[in-house]
Amino acid sequence: MDYRPRPEDVRFLLNVVLDAPARLRALAPFAEVDEALQSQVLEEAARFVGEVVAPVNREGDEVGCRFDKGEVISPPGFRAAYQAFVDGGWPALSAATEDGGQGLPSVLEAVLYEWLSAANHGLTMAPGLLHGAYACLKHHGSDELKRRYLQKIATGEWLATMCLTEAHAGSDLGQVRTRAMPQADGSLRVSGSKIFISGGEHDLTPNIVHLVLCRLPDASAGPKGLSLVLVPKLLPDGTRNAVHCERIEEKMGLHGSPTCSMRFDDATGWLVGEAGRGLAAMFVMMNSARLHVALQGIGLLDAAWQKADAYAAERRQMRAPGAVPASRGTEAADLIAEHPAIRRILDTQRAWIDGARTLAYRSALMLDVAAHDADPKARERALRWCSLVTPVLKAACTHQAFHGASECLQVFGGHGYVREWGIEQVVRDARVTMIYEGTNEIQAIDLLVRKVLPDGGAAMSAVLLELRDTLDASRDADADVQRRLAQLRYLGTTIAMSAHANPVLPYEVADDYLRVVMLTMMAWAWARIEATGGTDDAGRTRAAAAFRRWVLPEFEMRLGIVKRACESLALSHAAAEGVAR
Amino acid sequence: MDYRPRPEDVRFLLNVVLDAPARLRALAPFAEVDEALQSQVLEEAARFVGEVVAPVNREGDEVGCRFDKGEVISPPGFRAAYQAFVDGGWPALSAATEDGGQGLPSVLEAVLYEWLSAANHGLTMAPGLLHGAYACLKHHGSDELKRRYLQKIATGEWLATMCLTEAHAGSDLGQVRTRAMPQADGSLRVSGSKIFISGGEHDLTPNIVHLVLCRLPDASAGPKGLSLVLVPKLLPDGTRNAVHCERIEEKMGLHGSPTCSMRFDDATGWLVGEAGRGLAAMFVMMNSARLHVALQGIGLLDAAWQKADAYAAERRQMRAPGAVPASRGTEAADLIAEHPAIRRILDTQRAWIDGARTLAYRSALMLDVAAHDADPKARERALRWCSLVTPVLKAACTHQAFHGASECLQVFGGHGYVREWGIEQVVRDARVTMIYEGTNEIQAIDLLVRKVLPDGGAAMSAVLLELRDTLDASRDADADVQRRLAQLRYLGTTIAMSAHANPVLPYEVADDYLRVVMLTMMAWAWARIEATGGTDDAGRTRAAAAFRRWVLPEFEMRLGIVKRACESLALSHAAAEGVAR
Repeated sequence: MDYRPRPEDVRFLLNVVLDAPARLRALAPFAEVDEALQSQVLEEAARFVGEVVAPVNREGDEVGCRFDKGEVISPPGFRAAYQAFVDGGWPALSAATEDGGQGLPSVLEAVLYEWLSAANHGLTMAPGLLHGAYACLKHHGSDELKRRYLQKIATGEWLATMCLTEAHAGSDLGQVRTRAMPQADGSLRVSGSKIFISGGEHDLTPNIVHLVLCRLPDASAGPKGLSLVLVPKLLPDGTRNAVHCERIEEKMGLHGSPTCSMRFDDATGWLVGEAGRGLAAMFVMMNSARLHVALQGIGLLDAAWQKADAYAAERRQMRAPGAVPASRGTEAADLIAEHPAIRRILDTQRAWIDGARTLAYRSALMLDVAAHDADPKARERALRWCSLVTPVLKAACTHQAFHGASECLQVFGGHGYVREWGIEQVVRDARVTMIYEGTNEIQAIDLLVRKVLPDGGAAMSAVLLELRDTLDASRDADADVQRRLAQLRYLGTTIAMSAHANPVLPYEVADDYLRVVMLTMMAWAWARIEATGGTDDAGRTRAAAAFRRWVLPEFEMRLGIVKRACESLALSHAAAEGVAR
Repeated sequence: MDYRPRPEDVRFLLNVVLDAPARLRALAPFAEVDEALQSQVLEEAARFVGEVVAPVNREGDEVGCRFDKGEVISPPGFRAAYQAFVDGGWPALSAATEDGGQGLPSVLEAVLYEWLSAANHGLTMAPGLLHGAYACLKHHGSDELKRRYLQKIATGEWLATMCLTEAHAGSDLGQVRTRAMPQADGSLRVSGSKIFISGGEHDLTPNIVHLVLCRLPDASAGPKGLSLVLVPKLLPDGTRNAVHCERIEEKMGLHGSPTCSMRFDDATGWLVGEAGRGLAAMFVMMNSARLHVALQGIGLLDAAWQKADAYAAERRQMRAPGAVPASRGTEAADLIAEHPAIRRILDTQRAWIDGARTLAYRSALMLDVAAHDADPKARERALRWCSLVTPVLKAACTHQAFHGASECLQVFGGHGYVREWGIEQVVRDARVTMIYEGTNEIQAIDLLVRKVLPDGGAAMSAVLLELRDTLDASRDADADVQRRLAQLRYLGTTIAMSAHANPVLPYEVADDYLRVVMLTMMAWAWARIEATGGTDDAGRTRAAAAFRRWVLPEFEMRLGIVKRACESLALSHAAAEGVAR
């Protein structure tokens, strides 16, 4: 069964829960982007994804990419599907019109990429990297580089890569050793080896534009000595540049996307942005890239859920307990969807999908607000949301993609473990999202250590208070969320105080803190869904109940873990003082 | 890195924590099996597993089994390794001496299989099925069948299968349709199709003995109409029987074990046990088979942990927070083992491994007691333990194998997702253990609905009281465990009462109940480890702390989920009564 996007689910969350059409129309560039146009774009995206992208997913996994003497051959159907993607103008959906784009809101691009990832994670990796390269070049590229590359990248005519990782430099980019030597003509000669480069070589586009993190001569050690250099596969005169793919990795999944080891042998390139400011140039796109990974997670979870939901609605095994279900008819066995253990799995994943979607789409809206609102205060608030919420969504949505897809696999019993139904591919594909674009452990440290604690929790408190103000305390569900928001604010203060006594503590509880934030925000999302009539739908009503029964109890558990860590520190501190006295 | 068994870890748990040597010597058949002999067996098993079985694991995954015109070709090295296994007498370690076995305790076989699974899950599937077939035939086979097959199976000269599942009959064996027609000579002709048959065809042994669940003519519908029939690949006269492998499955993992679709075309067979008592004949080996799957889970988790622990002790990335670790030396970056997020993963998995081992080895000891104790009361107590604890271990250990191995994969960052380090194979291989031998959801229902509730929780209470009596309430850790044991007993009563009002409720909370039982028993295990000096070892001290900080808090969460389900039922019941009044 191929993935089928369901625009009606998304429309409810965007239009009813998040009031996206009104929010977008308030932004100058989107004054004409009304609800009808948005719906039309989503309908067409759904059709394209379902009819063109989803059908080639299976061969992407089974045949995979092949490496042959430096060339990479895409799986069957990938070239045609990618060409149709370019011809349809989909890569440039949210790119500026002056760059050949359609100038539509980020939030529509977010939905598009969620669906693309659900339908075909491997193929989606290729254009997924365009957007970061486009933003990076648009903000930091010289006019000459922009003239040569910006439109080609925006439209997907040429694909792009991010060449960061080296064998000894993964999470720790400060250890990057690739060198760039300045030449008399202003160009650079780049030498070194990079690994784990998604789409480093392929046959989807004639040219490939690499953005390479490297060191100029005399650069300082560590991350501050890094520069970003654009190295094209084909030079402007059409000749082949000295950048080559040496091999592609054998991976657990994601076989449709080539993960390349690249060698740069005095390859010609040009500086992007300032020397020594390579990481800063890349960080321009950090929030949007991480949000896209969160959306991959949501998409993959939805793909797994769709498969499991369909299987549970036709597979019969044993009698379900309790009252005779209407679906029994004259059958000796009941649909497994009627069995409580299966129902719980399906409803719980549904709770994650719609809760996480609400938060992810809100974040995409905030990217639009941050870019286009006339009011600088509104832009600042939007950026604050993105900065704090993006690592939470990246970690939590990808965690759930893998674990929830595994739950969905369980619905199939033994049939889930074999290739036939495609569910095990989702589990394998999803696993990588917990690692790339910053491991989930690094997201948690980014959130707590780099973003929450430095201002004593002030920015996070401001975000939580904003959420509180959307709630109506006369509703029980809303009052419950308000209580959790208050607990979370207090937790930030507690950790900040404990961190003075033990600077290691925040690193120990970072994962738990991130989970508490996610669960609080999911509770907010579900309270909004319920308040806006979301539970008129039977599936959403079950999901809302599943969220409260089976997802939300982790809030108290994680809160307790963090609190006890802070308390035991305070106790040992007091004991030490007692001894000293 | 190949898996290396560490007998010293196991010896501590067996000899010091569980007092196994004294317990075993008290059983007549093991009067001579002293600690020195046990140690010698374990040392030799460790050497064999490390030197012969582990090295061929990688090719088992990468090359896998091949299917060619009805034949299955084993991965390179598998035939030689299996032959060495037979030649060493390992299959018959705990089989009776009169059947060509060594008559050693089950608990030693349990350790052997944990290590075998850790080293090479695929290869271990082959002999893993012998033991069930051996027990089944020994208890239920006719003298003639025993004479022909028992010793061949006990020694591993011929391998065996369990042919249960059909396309429409997975968890629901009552739907099995394979037919057996009686013949004038007392034999049966078996016709039908079976799927998911591990080792249904292979080149490891000349003959393969299938135990096939099927229906005799006029058998009643449902599970009570099932009979068990022995169908050999080669008939006693050496001719080929009409049982054939039609294909092998493409799976997520476990590529070293062929998962076969089998066709029986009027194949000749003989009844095992009574007609219509097929399930009963199989259930003889249920506790031991499920315990072996739990041990697979523990082994796979230990394999993942070993890889991650070794990697974390040599990979350097970034500075660790806090005091300068001694391992830094002059390096710019610290070992990732010094980073709190990585430390937490490693210590948490260690806590699961040693806690679960303690419980699994205790269960294996109880299998020995149940089989050999002179005191019928002691045998009954041992059987009670096995009946109640086995489903808990099967579900919890396999759950942790997959999820913990995935955590260990995370330690490798991007390197974990590629084949090179072998960690992703462990994750893929481990996934199936949550499904086969009864899905984990079925284990939870077996525990709560079929075993705990029918006697109102009496048997489970008795097991918990036995554990309580091993504790010393003057120790804080022991008192904490006693409190949890009491909470768990009370929980059983609460569910039993609620089940009267809503018979579906136990099915809804079965998973949570099973987790509460496992966490309580793990708390008991760790209290025993600590009380017997287990924390003289630095790794175990960290694991004990990790257990309390990060594993045990799930106890309160799960307890709360079950209690709230019971309370909300009581409330709605009271409300309904209010309306009625």
